[in-house]
Amino acid sequence: MTFPPIREELQGIEPYGAPQLDVPVQLNVNENPYGPSPATAADIAAAAGAAATTLNRYPDREFTALREGLAAYLNTSGGSGITPDMVWAANGSNEVMLQLLQAFGGPGRAALSFAPTYAMYPEYARDTHTEWLVGKREDDFGLDLDRARALVEERRPSVVLLPSPNNPTGTALPTEAVSTLCEAVGEGGIVVVDEAYTEFRRTGTPSALEMLPTHRNLVVTRTMSKAFALAGARLGYLAADPAICDAIRVVRLPYHLSSVTQATALAALRHAPELLGRVADLRVERDSCVAWLREQGLQVAESDANFALFGTFADRRAVWQGLLDRGVLIRETGPEGWLRVSIGTPDEMMAFKDALIDVMKTEPMRPQPTEGST
Amino acid sequence: MTFPPIREELQGIEPYGAPQLDVPVQLNVNENPYGPSPATAADIAAAAGAAATTLNRYPDREFTALREGLAAYLNTSGGSGITPDMVWAANGSNEVMLQLLQAFGGPGRAALSFAPTYAMYPEYARDTHTEWLVGKREDDFGLDLDRARALVEERRPSVVLLPSPNNPTGTALPTEAVSTLCEAVGEGGIVVVDEAYTEFRRTGTPSALEMLPTHRNLVVTRTMSKAFALAGARLGYLAADPAICDAIRVVRLPYHLSSVTQATALAALRHAPELLGRVADLRVERDSCVAWLREQGLQVAESDANFALFGTFADRRAVWQGLLDRGVLIRETGPEGWLRVSIGTPDEMMAFKDALIDVMKTEPMRPQPTEGST
Repeated sequence: MTFPPIREELQGIEPYGAPQLDVPVQLNVNENPYGPSPATAADIAAAAGAAATTLNRYPDREFTALREGLAAYLNTSGGSGITPDMVWAANGSNEVMLQLLQAFGGPGRAALSFAPTYAMYPEYARDTHTEWLVGKREDDFGLDLDRARALVEERRPSVVLLPSPNNPTGTALPTEAVSTLCEAVGEGGIVVVDEAYTEFRRTGTPSALEMLPTHRNLVVTRTMSKAFALAGARLGYLAADPAICDAIRVVRLPYHLSSVTQATALAALRHAPELLGRVADLRVERDSCVAWLREQGLQVAESDANFALFGTFADRRAVWQGLLDRGVLIRETGPEGWLRVSIGTPDEMMAFKDALIDVMKTEPMRPQPTEGST
Repeated sequence: MTFPPIREELQGIEPYGAPQLDVPVQLNVNENPYGPSPATAADIAAAAGAAATTLNRYPDREFTALREGLAAYLNTSGGSGITPDMVWAANGSNEVMLQLLQAFGGPGRAALSFAPTYAMYPEYARDTHTEWLVGKREDDFGLDLDRARALVEERRPSVVLLPSPNNPTGTALPTEAVSTLCEAVGEGGIVVVDEAYTEFRRTGTPSALEMLPTHRNLVVTRTMSKAFALAGARLGYLAADPAICDAIRVVRLPYHLSSVTQATALAALRHAPELLGRVADLRVERDSCVAWLREQGLQVAESDANFALFGTFADRRAVWQGLLDRGVLIRETGPEGWLRVSIGTPDEMMAFKDALIDVMKTEPMRPQPTEGST
């Protein structure tokens, strides 16, 4: 027995997290490059100050006002008829996911996703002792619905995790994919559509919120980290059948959302128009970045998110390091040969493009398969 | 299969939490009755406002400044030589406990405490699939060390949870109890001394921090909820061997502590002298309350906390209800016949005493055992 007596399956594991490097251009963790305006920051400060006067008391365990605010927002963001009892929130989407797996996964149960998928999911499964199953996305990073349904029917997962837009590929799922999997899973499980990036989706791309009225085993998760530029405040949430929210309440730690967190999130919701205006700018910048990368001869995954997955390179680590040497930090993630860049300000994207052009002088792309060769 | 498909062992379980009732005198959840001063509240607001300007960025995953602040404070509060790498923090002591059980408990392992003990512990064990073992405290709510050691040696728990001062009894453990159990557990487990209430301990009562240098399997947890009057901000923490902190890092959710939480806690630490001055007042009020309850002929557990456990009543529910009817909310907890009252302001304690005198006119105490009859 080694000391400390950590569980066997955790021994030697490195904690999850992108490298925290001090670099001028940070395009590695899909942050929103725009901080809150002075007016928003002042409102957040005032809200926190008001909360501070009663910090000796525990927070509202049911975060009633915040649930009302989130429900109202969702009804302007792809949803309709969403009521506060259909909303749940926690300290970041990752705590929401942990709670979902505590309530609906766990020993003797399995969670399924389709790779490439969000790298934290297997950690949530491991930390809740949920069996982790992983199917495959197609070459375009979409789902073959017949194969996906067959896998669900064979393995009977109690939780299916579908990021849409997907991380790290940016791929959004069609409505049909969500309904097919909700039906395949049935009432013995839940389907979690992780819409962390959904506010960045292109015109015409649906939100799974539309399907809540017809699939009561559907859970749609969101976050304020990206569109609301609130990564530092840690506020993830979900919309689902009220019975699903009630089930989570059994496993949540009491008072998990601090008074200050509740006040901060409510203040940001009051400034939604300003914050979402920046999202519109970032969508334009994203489309422009995707087009530019393709002009360089690169493959780029279709993106409905605030990042782009591009490649492929013979030595992606060398490209990543070459960019870092030029002051631009992106993320080495996704299938072999691909890299992910977050969408920043126009200046940041200019720095990224200049650095990439320079790096590509010495770092070759992989030979692309010719038509029909795959 | 019922919908939603929540885990079998969670079906029909009521979420943990004291009733949230709107009553003039709230003495039920051991809150500090004194809010921060205007100067402290203003500093918290300013700190949150400063954090707000960069909320689009993720927080410092390692909360470096906060760990430094907490280490410095612990070295003034019973500890010495505590360095930042010996400190860990999370959203409330309950998240700290969950993380400890995720890393050191889990399937195939057991956690042990001694009843009466904190009511949340079995929930943490359930939520991490850790077997829950419970020994017994003696009639004075202390531990018989021979029996406690024998139980540890028989059952080999990987986590021993020792609240000191204990909740709901207020009982602090002697140094010898901690060292005996650390030795009995050995390096195959950890001993967690939960010092949520330790700043309220009476003069001469030790903190387990003193024993960190000699027991590397010892974890001492603290909270800012009580002494720092910061229940609404959710900041629990611990001091332990750096290797134990590193182990927790594997199971923590990345970015679990928001920028605003870190800033709020740091601001409160800067005002420690003011906040701890109130603790001195509350200790005096506690001792006075204990003495007064005894004058009424009641039994009162020795208390080193900011509450008192008293009784015993033939019908404690009727006493609790009688107090509530008179605008005073206390807690129905602890062994049969006992009730727990948090220490409030002098006015609140006066209201409690008046109400209790009134209620006791019709609600009898239980007959006390005569000397030697137990």
